Amino acid sequence: MTHAADGAARTATLTLPRGEIRTPAFMPVGTAGTVKAMMPESVRETGADILLGNTYHLMLRPGAERVARLGGLHKFMGWERPILTDSGGFQVMSLSDLRKIAEEGVRFRSHIDGSEHFLSPERAMEIQCLLGSDIQMVLDECPKLPASEAAIETSLALSMRWAKRSKAAFGEQPGHACFGIVQGGTYANLRCRSAEELQEIGFDGYAIGGLAVGEPQEVMFETLDAVMPSMPADRPRYLMGVGKPDDIAGAVLRGIDMFDCVLPTRAGRTAQAFTRDGTLNLRNARHAEDDAPLDPACRCPACRKFSRAYLHHTVKANEIIASMLLTWHNLTYYQDLMQDLRDAIAEGRLAAQVAEIARVYAREPVD
Amino acid sequence: MTHAADGAARTATLTLPRGEIRTPAFMPVGTAGTVKAMMPESVRETGADILLGNTYHLMLRPGAERVARLGGLHKFMGWERPILTDSGGFQVMSLSDLRKIAEEGVRFRSHIDGSEHFLSPERAMEIQCLLGSDIQMVLDECPKLPASEAAIETSLALSMRWAKRSKAAFGEQPGHACFGIVQGGTYANLRCRSAEELQEIGFDGYAIGGLAVGEPQEVMFETLDAVMPSMPADRPRYLMGVGKPDDIAGAVLRGIDMFDCVLPTRAGRTAQAFTRDGTLNLRNARHAEDDAPLDPACRCPACRKFSRAYLHHTVKANEIIASMLLTWHNLTYYQDLMQDLRDAIAEGRLAAQVAEIARVYAREPVD
Repeated sequence: MTHAADGAARTATLTLPRGEIRTPAFMPVGTAGTVKAMMPESVRETGADILLGNTYHLMLRPGAERVARLGGLHKFMGWERPILTDSGGFQVMSLSDLRKIAEEGVRFRSHIDGSEHFLSPERAMEIQCLLGSDIQMVLDECPKLPASEAAIETSLALSMRWAKRSKAAFGEQPGHACFGIVQGGTYANLRCRSAEELQEIGFDGYAIGGLAVGEPQEVMFETLDAVMPSMPADRPRYLMGVGKPDDIAGAVLRGIDMFDCVLPTRAGRTAQAFTRDGTLNLRNARHAEDDAPLDPACRCPACRKFSRAYLHHTVKANEIIASMLLTWHNLTYYQDLMQDLRDAIAEGRLAAQVAEIARVYAREPVD
Repeated sequence: MTHAADGAARTATLTLPRGEIRTPAFMPVGTAGTVKAMMPESVRETGADILLGNTYHLMLRPGAERVARLGGLHKFMGWERPILTDSGGFQVMSLSDLRKIAEEGVRFRSHIDGSEHFLSPERAMEIQCLLGSDIQMVLDECPKLPASEAAIETSLALSMRWAKRSKAAFGEQPGHACFGIVQGGTYANLRCRSAEELQEIGFDGYAIGGLAVGEPQEVMFETLDAVMPSMPADRPRYLMGVGKPDDIAGAVLRGIDMFDCVLPTRAGRTAQAFTRDGTLNLRNARHAEDDAPLDPACRCPACRKFSRAYLHHTVKANEIIASMLLTWHNLTYYQDLMQDLRDAIAEGRLAAQVAEIARVYAREPVD
């Protein structure tokens, strides 16, 4: 249900049997059945309505059939609200060894133990069904950028054939959704063709994949500008793997509804904090005697109960609590960012809000 | 205030300005300003009334003067209840490099950066005062066991001279306590002499140091049996660095009131769990599909919300949540153990309770 629109952006509520998702939404990444360094109830306290789980990691360890025997991913990891799972395609390309892509699917070796595995569109959907995923993604091929138009076109054609097979394999799963993934690199014509072909198949939502893989932000925004008119307005639009706060703000301005990214969690384990004033590196000695909170406007435990000096000390001492507190803070920052964007859309002042976020985050990181 | 006694054991409440301590008490170890992998409020939820902080670690990083400028250790680490600090003596002997012990004190190099430091009885007390410690320990020398009676006697004499200087340096600190430390290895005559000499100086409580350093449990218990009659009945008695559940139970039976040990926290970071049925190694493959809780009688989040299969998976995947959950569980187990011992003393059935704990924990670890 859409509540309000502001230009191309909209704020809405997506209702699934396991809970409502306020959009634009940021999905914390729970790769291997845990949002790293966080208790599930703490993730919920940050304001997250939905998590992302990684098919690639979960199929290798503990295994999809095992998760199913244990009652599904929600029960296993203690998160009863919605979960979106990717199809494994992106991680097979980026993490596994010795992969071999064919029409049927992709054969690869596990980065954990070298064991051989096979992922087809049908198996990707079967795994996501075994996990009990609420939103399941089609298997796609994710080519590295930059790549020639011919190479992207060949890859795209395979991804579209896989999308059709994925949808057929998904079948009918009441209460569960299946999303297609638009590919096409940075070529506007291929992106639009991909969006149209996916709509002919028919999906519950449409993702944009293969961006945020190293290209400059303006190239990503130009690609979005080109493809968004071809994305259906009555379905959720999901920009996969994005991103920094200013990436997200700019994409919301262009009509994106959903995001996922490891950045806030990974940064939290490497002493980086996102604040309303930009990023901070808590390892920097200038925080050693700073009794001030990380971000005085933040509601998270790291900011309410501890000083920058304490965060600096625990980072330097490699204490687990540093990862716990900074992850908690960064996820809170990201959820507050999304709430601010939702509020700005509802109040018709999104452009100014996005400009302010870009102003802060276009600066060099301060530390 | 003593509530009840059962043989040599007693249960009491120790009242300090920052809070009450129910004895027999187990103090979780917060070495470097954090109980590893735990939020302070979670430590409190386990039932802990008091934490232990390590003078050696805190003097090296972030430094006692810095902690004082930041408002003291309680504020710094977000724990407002009592804190006991050791004097640094034990860790200087076990962790630092190139130490040189003289009458004046001990010169050593930091295990972190090789920098040179000096710890005297006066400086040890000054550091603990700067940290704001509620219970401060005298500086002692901790000889390695086994050692000859002559070597222990020489070491003990130095420790007793240092105890006198420590007490003088502590001076008068209303609301804060200073504990002496009985040394003497496993020699009953030296232990008793040490206890008597400390009482002549006069302390708020009396600790037993230099045990649980590798000697068999029966030697530790024999040493306790020999020295406890010389320990004043009207003061808290603290057995430093102990121990396994059956070590604690046996020491409570012999009249000990306070304990600290890294075992529950360290074990939690290495996949070991203490349960009412003995210890479990969650890394073992037999837990991989076990949907049962770690310990069905336990109230902690690891047992209430997750399965053994989930703990096994997150241990194998080196996920931080495994350390978080198993630490939380182990600290809960230890606090419940202490509550059970307090209840057993109050109800005059301590011997049976201790025998039951010994029966479970004398077995080889099951996994």
